[in-house]
Amino acid sequence: MDFLRAVSARDGHEILSSFPVDPKTEMVSIEEARGRVLGADIVSGEGIPSFTRSLVDGYAVKAKDTQGARETSPALLYVRGEVRIGEVAGITVSDAEAVYVATGSMIPQGVDAVVMQEYARPAADAVEITRAAYQGENICYADEDIRQGQVVLKKGRKITAFDVGVLAAIGVSEVSVYRAPLIAVISSGDEIVGVDEPLPPGKVRDINRYTVSAVLQAEGACVRFCGLARDSVEAITAKLESARDCDMIVISGGSSKGERDYITTSIEGLGGKVLFHGINIKPGKPAIFGSLFGKPIFGLPGHPGSCAMVTIRFVLPFLRRLCGGYVRLETVVSGRVATNIPSAYGIEEYVRVALEKNDDGYLAKPIFSKSAVISPLAQADGYVIIPESSEGLEKGESVEVCLFA
Amino acid sequence: MDFLRAVSARDGHEILSSFPVDPKTEMVSIEEARGRVLGADIVSGEGIPSFTRSLVDGYAVKAKDTQGARETSPALLYVRGEVRIGEVAGITVSDAEAVYVATGSMIPQGVDAVVMQEYARPAADAVEITRAAYQGENICYADEDIRQGQVVLKKGRKITAFDVGVLAAIGVSEVSVYRAPLIAVISSGDEIVGVDEPLPPGKVRDINRYTVSAVLQAEGACVRFCGLARDSVEAITAKLESARDCDMIVISGGSSKGERDYITTSIEGLGGKVLFHGINIKPGKPAIFGSLFGKPIFGLPGHPGSCAMVTIRFVLPFLRRLCGGYVRLETVVSGRVATNIPSAYGIEEYVRVALEKNDDGYLAKPIFSKSAVISPLAQADGYVIIPESSEGLEKGESVEVCLFA
Repeated sequence: MDFLRAVSARDGHEILSSFPVDPKTEMVSIEEARGRVLGADIVSGEGIPSFTRSLVDGYAVKAKDTQGARETSPALLYVRGEVRIGEVAGITVSDAEAVYVATGSMIPQGVDAVVMQEYARPAADAVEITRAAYQGENICYADEDIRQGQVVLKKGRKITAFDVGVLAAIGVSEVSVYRAPLIAVISSGDEIVGVDEPLPPGKVRDINRYTVSAVLQAEGACVRFCGLARDSVEAITAKLESARDCDMIVISGGSSKGERDYITTSIEGLGGKVLFHGINIKPGKPAIFGSLFGKPIFGLPGHPGSCAMVTIRFVLPFLRRLCGGYVRLETVVSGRVATNIPSAYGIEEYVRVALEKNDDGYLAKPIFSKSAVISPLAQADGYVIIPESSEGLEKGESVEVCLFA
Repeated sequence: MDFLRAVSARDGHEILSSFPVDPKTEMVSIEEARGRVLGADIVSGEGIPSFTRSLVDGYAVKAKDTQGARETSPALLYVRGEVRIGEVAGITVSDAEAVYVATGSMIPQGVDAVVMQEYARPAADAVEITRAAYQGENICYADEDIRQGQVVLKKGRKITAFDVGVLAAIGVSEVSVYRAPLIAVISSGDEIVGVDEPLPPGKVRDINRYTVSAVLQAEGACVRFCGLARDSVEAITAKLESARDCDMIVISGGSSKGERDYITTSIEGLGGKVLFHGINIKPGKPAIFGSLFGKPIFGLPGHPGSCAMVTIRFVLPFLRRLCGGYVRLETVVSGRVATNIPSAYGIEEYVRVALEKNDDGYLAKPIFSKSAVISPLAQADGYVIIPESSEGLEKGESVEVCLFA
């Protein structure tokens, strides 16, 4: 295959990274914030906890009053009363006194430790303490957790379920997040029919529409399916026009030479620019990236397996920039290769694998298949990257498997 | 702490596993199917591909006609015409003939290989083939990918983005999935105020509502927040009553003895049964599990860190049963412990860690904190499990870190 502007995988990523993006933000309630990317640093307006609290049920005491206390010679303290949870501790504790507190109760003035009730024997209006306490024991001090003015969560962070709890803790009920980009998805090809249409001989169903949309939606994008374009410059141009207001366009189809030309011709005819056409990867070589209406456009190969891998390796990282550019911890598992995997020098290859857990860890079993074949999509747990400089992996070699889910 | 029916982590999981569940299914379009759990096996009604196709652009030939062909002595074949993509191949090819095909074109009768155009030199109405082809080369045969009647995806599988493509390929536009369970979330405690309310001295904001809801929603549940119950049997009973129509109830709060009693008393007062009260884990010991209105109910500790860990370790696996019981590949990364981590014998301990990538792989840095403290929730990438039989981990020891996200 001859491409005008074919690039290495690394150069492809560089072209993607240098494409300018300008993601916008919006406010959402914290109940809808999980999975969104923070559009601004979150600075705490207050200290947490807002008061000094007990971590256990027991007796708030002056630690010095319990010195040397043990089972056989307990310290006897007068019980001044109780601070119930949620109440203000009005008491100031004097020497040889104790106050009963529950987990979470405010610590009264004058004490510096809480003795768990397991080490306390109540007796009328007094209590016997059977173990020495140390200063600060079982106490969480005001501001110990979060200081006022502290940056609690950073801009660009993808908000986790636990982050939502942290936001609630500091009284933040709404946050600025990056707006979900609107992605136009277009399928092209004379041979493609919709999933609900009858399948005439020689035709195949539109698969890429569904895989591409689902992968992008899982990452937080809104997807608009703009329909199926026939293989002609006019049909493709019309579909691209209909996507003018979207933040990004992804058109799949064109694994044969003529079809690819329709897409690049249409982009250029509309005043866009093809930035690369072809990546030295396998599968996925016929991928296109360019600029159209000032926005990014991907042309993905028509073969479903190739289309899926280019989406994962190239479209998704770009989408993350559109979503605020957060850095994601790759979910990889280490494993050993079950069989030799040959690979061509000079091509970055992605080999889909199924994982099998055994006593030594994970066994990564490559799923060899023609790129036109569909079912391996569902069988693979992840994929292994074989770099350009490698001619393959040997059976038993240890590898990192990038998980799909 | 003394609990009436405290269990080990293993026994806790066994009690959860033996609780009867009866998840229901519903039909959804494949566009909404990602992340849902299949309610029935998917059997293909047709073979894929539905016709024998070319995998490349080139010339469909009889392999035997290219025997011995090379650059310097090509095989000369008469070109009978072309099969365009999406067309029916009407031609039957005879000896010493070739037909031009595109990637995805139907393979005509009489041929058994496709020569890539790189190895073909067109010349008037003939073509010179410069490399020998082998039988089946660059051809994907009808039914080779998926056979009619084949189980393509199994009941209980969580549908991935790629599975959606496989469903489209076989013409399935709607699938049976398990209904998203409706989970009642209740917060309790005299000290708790809502995130939008003013924070009087001695009070804390409701955090567990948000973390628990977000974790359950991420797993596919619908959450109904039933509100904040004060610390009394009457208040808690009223909230539990309001959750009668839900598929599961999760009430948080009660890390001090009295509060815990309100929850168990309320469950039993409504005719429910407490199946365990206390698990030998850290954090999270005060967790409760029972049956109420014939449905599962969890009582989670009030401390946000404890509440979060019990949600992850116990509520989530149970929720997966309610969602159709799919088996999930744990997302773990292997790493080395950055410091010694002591742990008590006889308790299953969960130590939250932050991961740091270095040349040797991941370094797992434990986040030591009081269980009442909030901010570590957002700092941890995952957690390490220290089993009951272990007294801790040594610096440099290799561990598996379960990722939160």
